[in-house]
Amino acid sequence: MTTSSYGLSAAKLLVEEGLNAVVLEARDRVGGRTFTARNKETKWVDLGGAYIGPTQNRILRLAKEYGIKTYKVNEQESLVHYVKGKSYPFKGPFPPMWNPLAVLDYNNLWRTLDDMGKEIPREAPWRAPHAQEWDSMTMQQLFDKILWTSAARHFATLFVNVNVTSEPHEVSALWFLWYVKQCGGTMRIFSTTNGGQERKFLGGSSQISECMAKELGDRVKMKRAVYSIDQSKDLVEVKTLNDEVYKAKYVIVAIPPSLNLKIHFNPEMPPLRNQLIHRVPMGSVIKCMMYYRENFWRKKGFCGTMVIEDEEAPIGLTLDDTKPDESVPCIMGFILSRKCRKLCELTKEERKRRICEIYSRVLGSQEALHPVHYEEKNWCEEEYSGGCYTAYFPPGILTQFGKVLREPVSRLFFAGTETATEWSGYMEGAVQAGERASREILCAMGKISRSEIWQSEAESIDVPALPFATTFWERNLPSVGGLLKFMGVSTFLSAVTAAGLVACKKGLLPRW
Amino acid sequence: MTTSSYGLSAAKLLVEEGLNAVVLEARDRVGGRTFTARNKETKWVDLGGAYIGPTQNRILRLAKEYGIKTYKVNEQESLVHYVKGKSYPFKGPFPPMWNPLAVLDYNNLWRTLDDMGKEIPREAPWRAPHAQEWDSMTMQQLFDKILWTSAARHFATLFVNVNVTSEPHEVSALWFLWYVKQCGGTMRIFSTTNGGQERKFLGGSSQISECMAKELGDRVKMKRAVYSIDQSKDLVEVKTLNDEVYKAKYVIVAIPPSLNLKIHFNPEMPPLRNQLIHRVPMGSVIKCMMYYRENFWRKKGFCGTMVIEDEEAPIGLTLDDTKPDESVPCIMGFILSRKCRKLCELTKEERKRRICEIYSRVLGSQEALHPVHYEEKNWCEEEYSGGCYTAYFPPGILTQFGKVLREPVSRLFFAGTETATEWSGYMEGAVQAGERASREILCAMGKISRSEIWQSEAESIDVPALPFATTFWERNLPSVGGLLKFMGVSTFLSAVTAAGLVACKKGLLPRW
Repeated sequence: MTTSSYGLSAAKLLVEEGLNAVVLEARDRVGGRTFTARNKETKWVDLGGAYIGPTQNRILRLAKEYGIKTYKVNEQESLVHYVKGKSYPFKGPFPPMWNPLAVLDYNNLWRTLDDMGKEIPREAPWRAPHAQEWDSMTMQQLFDKILWTSAARHFATLFVNVNVTSEPHEVSALWFLWYVKQCGGTMRIFSTTNGGQERKFLGGSSQISECMAKELGDRVKMKRAVYSIDQSKDLVEVKTLNDEVYKAKYVIVAIPPSLNLKIHFNPEMPPLRNQLIHRVPMGSVIKCMMYYRENFWRKKGFCGTMVIEDEEAPIGLTLDDTKPDESVPCIMGFILSRKCRKLCELTKEERKRRICEIYSRVLGSQEALHPVHYEEKNWCEEEYSGGCYTAYFPPGILTQFGKVLREPVSRLFFAGTETATEWSGYMEGAVQAGERASREILCAMGKISRSEIWQSEAESIDVPALPFATTFWERNLPSVGGLLKFMGVSTFLSAVTAAGLVACKKGLLPRW
Repeated sequence: MTTSSYGLSAAKLLVEEGLNAVVLEARDRVGGRTFTARNKETKWVDLGGAYIGPTQNRILRLAKEYGIKTYKVNEQESLVHYVKGKSYPFKGPFPPMWNPLAVLDYNNLWRTLDDMGKEIPREAPWRAPHAQEWDSMTMQQLFDKILWTSAARHFATLFVNVNVTSEPHEVSALWFLWYVKQCGGTMRIFSTTNGGQERKFLGGSSQISECMAKELGDRVKMKRAVYSIDQSKDLVEVKTLNDEVYKAKYVIVAIPPSLNLKIHFNPEMPPLRNQLIHRVPMGSVIKCMMYYRENFWRKKGFCGTMVIEDEEAPIGLTLDDTKPDESVPCIMGFILSRKCRKLCELTKEERKRRICEIYSRVLGSQEALHPVHYEEKNWCEEEYSGGCYTAYFPPGILTQFGKVLREPVSRLFFAGTETATEWSGYMEGAVQAGERASREILCAMGKISRSEIWQSEAESIDVPALPFATTFWERNLPSVGGLLKFMGVSTFLSAVTAAGLVACKKGLLPRW
C-alpha cells in the first residue's frame, strides 16, 4: 500500500511484480505537485511541476511508455537579463557580466559551487569531507565568503531563489551544494537547452500520473487522506479521513518528509525520525501564467525567458509557455520565496497587474499590459503539499538527521522526491524514489537481493544529454580573492588595500 | 474546546467565566512537556519542565491557588566550571574567565546580547529596527562577528545549547535575542538564584496540571488525540483518534506550532500559517537524573551545579536535584542538542555509564561512579511534543512568518507556550498563552473588550524578583574589537596586527 501520488510509480512496479497494491491519495486528483488544469482559455496548463530535460531518464521512460510526447521550451530568440532597471539580451545558460571584477567573481562562483559539489556523495551528503563545516553555514555565508561584487551576489541570490524557492540565508550550504550536484551541476540545473527546463510534456505533466492511475484502475483510491498508521498488529493498519481502514503487509509513505506529521503513528517514530520530520520545510512559490493574443516578445527578438533582478518585481524568472504549435501565447513566471510570502496576501487581480507591469518594462512593450487570460497557483496554500517545489534543509539538519531520511521503520518504507539521489525535488526524483521503495519491499519479501534495490537507468534515446564544455578561461581565471592575493605578494600597498576591502566587505566596523 | 495540556489553563479561565469547555488531551496523562513520575526510588521526579523563578508570576499564582509549595534549588556551595579537562569552582550566575582578552570578550558578549534585546519588541520581534538583518544571520554568525576568543565562543555555544536545546548555527539571531529578552535578559534566563532555575515545585510540576484537571473534572478527556478540525459547518467539528466527534463554537489549539500538522484542517489553513507550521522545529534534549546514596558533592564544597565544556561529555549543565529535606540525593543533567542526537542511539545503560564518568571527573570523586538509581527522559521520541523544551526559529522565519503565530483563523485560537510574549518556552508562557487565548474567545463573544485580552500579572509575594546590578566595569570595559581599534588609532603597527588577526579570525585564507 502506498500513500499519495508519486506512490503511483511505486504501486505500478509492485503490481507488475504480481503484488497486490493499493494507492491512497489525499486529494480528489492524482499528480501531487504536478497538476495539469484544462480549460478553453489555456487548452491545458501545468500549474505545478512541468519541466523535464536530459539525464531525467526515468520520467522520460515512463512518459514514453504511455506515448506522452515532449516538446522543447522556446529558446530560439534572445533571453533577457533585467538588472538595475535595464534589459540586456543574451544567449546561453547564464546572463553575462560586464564589469571585469564581476566577471572573475561570477566565473569563480559557478566553478566553486561545482567543485564543492564534487566532494559530496549524492547518496550520503552527510559523509562529505567538509560536511560539518558546510552544514553549519547558510548559502548566504558561503556567498559572503567567496563573492566580492554585488553583481555576483545578487545573481547568486536569484540562483538560490529559482532553484529551491527559498533564501540563501535559510538553507544549509551543504544541502544546497548537494542539491545542485545531484541535478548534474550549476549548468544542468539552470539551463533550458540541455538542462532541467529543456522540455515539457505535450498535454501536460499530470498525464503521467493519470496514465499510471488508469493502469492501476480501482487500486487507486481518491480522497483518502491518511491520518493514522498502526504497526502494532499482524498487518499494518492505515486509517483514512473518510473512516476506512486498510490493512497491508508493507506500506510506502510517498509524501514529503514534513507531511509525515499528518499521520499519527503507533508505535511512535524513532527519535531522530520524529524530529527530522519537523525540520525540513517546503519552499514557497506561486506559479503564474500570463496569456496574450500574440507572442509579441518573439517578434521583438525575445524568446520569453526573462531573468529579473529587481526587489520590487514580483517575478524572478520567466519562460515562454506558448504551445508548440504556436497557439495560446503565454509567459510562465515564478513568484519566489520572500516575494511569494509578501505577495500571497494580495488579490489575484493585483498580482496579475504587477506581473504585467514588470513584463512590460522588461520587454519594452505596451502589449504586455493587455493579457487575455491569467492562471496562477499558490502552492503555499496546499495542505497536502506544504509548498513547492521541494523540501529544503536549514543549517545543521542534513548532518544530524539526513541519514534517517529514507531509513525504513519496521514495515514502513519511504519514497517521495525528497528521498531521491538524482534529481531529488523533481518528477525524476519522485520516480526514482517510488521504484526504489518498491524494490525495498521486494527485497524484504525475499524476491530480490539487497544489491538490486538501487538501479541505474539507461539514457533516453529521444532526449540525450550533452556534456557542458568549460573554456580554458572559465577553468583558469583567478577569483577576485585570488587576484588580490597575487597582487598582495607583489606590492605592500595592494595588501593594505586588500585588508581594507576585507574589513569593509566583512562588515567589521562594529555596529554594536 | 481546547486541544492539549496547558489548554487546561485556558479551559479553567473559560469555566470560571461560566462557559462550557472541554479539554481534549492526546496522551493518557495531563501536563504535556511537564511530567512528574512517582516511584519508590525517587519519591517523585520531574522528567520534563521543572524550574520556576522570579518574574514567572502567572504559574506562581496558579501554584499558590492549589497550595503547591516551591523550594529553592541548592546553590549554597560552589558551582563548578569544567573546561579543558579541569574543574574551577565559582560563585555567581556565570563562570568567570581568566585570560584578560577573554574577560573583555565575555563581558562584551552579555552586554551586547542584552543591548540588542532592548531593541526587540517582545510582542512583535519582526518589527525590531534591525529585524531583517538579524533574522538573516544565525547566532553562530553573530558570535563570529562579535567574539574574538575561543573561550568566549565555546561558552557562548553552551549558552545557546542550554537555553534553547539547539545549536548556534541552527537558530536565527533575531529569534534567540528575542527569546533571551522576553525571559528578562542573559542573567535572568541563566541564573539559578534570582533566575529561571531558582526553584522547583515541592511534589513536582505536573501537580499544577493535575489540580486543574481535577477541578475541571470530566471536562478533561484523555487519549483524545485530535486528527481533524472542520470549520465548514455551523459548529466547529473536532475528531479524535478514538472515533469521537466534538462540536464547539470556538476551539483553542494549545499545542506547539509544528504539531498543528497532526491535524487535517477543513478549510485548509491560510498560506502563511500553512507554511509556518512546517518551519519551527522543537529542540533536542534528554533529561537525566542520577541518584546517589549521599550527596557527596556538598561535602566537597560543591552545590551540584556543573557547567561542563567538553565535546566528549554527554552533559552540558547539571543542577542539584536532591529533595529539600535532603532526602533522595540526586544530580539532574541535560544532554543537549547535537549530543542528544548523537547519544539517543546508545542504550540507557551506556548513557548512564558515560554520565557517571563525567560527573566523577568534574567532581573529582569516585562516589559519582556508583549511583543507586537512574531516570531519564528523551523528549525527542515523544510524538505529541516533537522535542523539548520549545520550538526554535531557523534563520529567516521569524520576520517572514512570525506575525501569523497567534493570529486566529476564523473560530480557531492559538495558545501553547510558543505563542507567549513573556517566558515563552516555559510553563509561565504556557499559562500566559492559554489565558490570553481564552480572553480572545470572551472578546469574540462580546463579553470583554479587545483591550482586556492581554493582561499583566501582579508580582508574586513569595518569589519576588531582584534587579541584576551591573558594575561600572561591566558597563564600560571595551570589547576586544574596540580595544584593537583604539590601539589601531595610535600605532600603524597595531593596525596591521589587527588586520592580520581579522584575516585569520574570519578564515579568509581561502580553502576552495
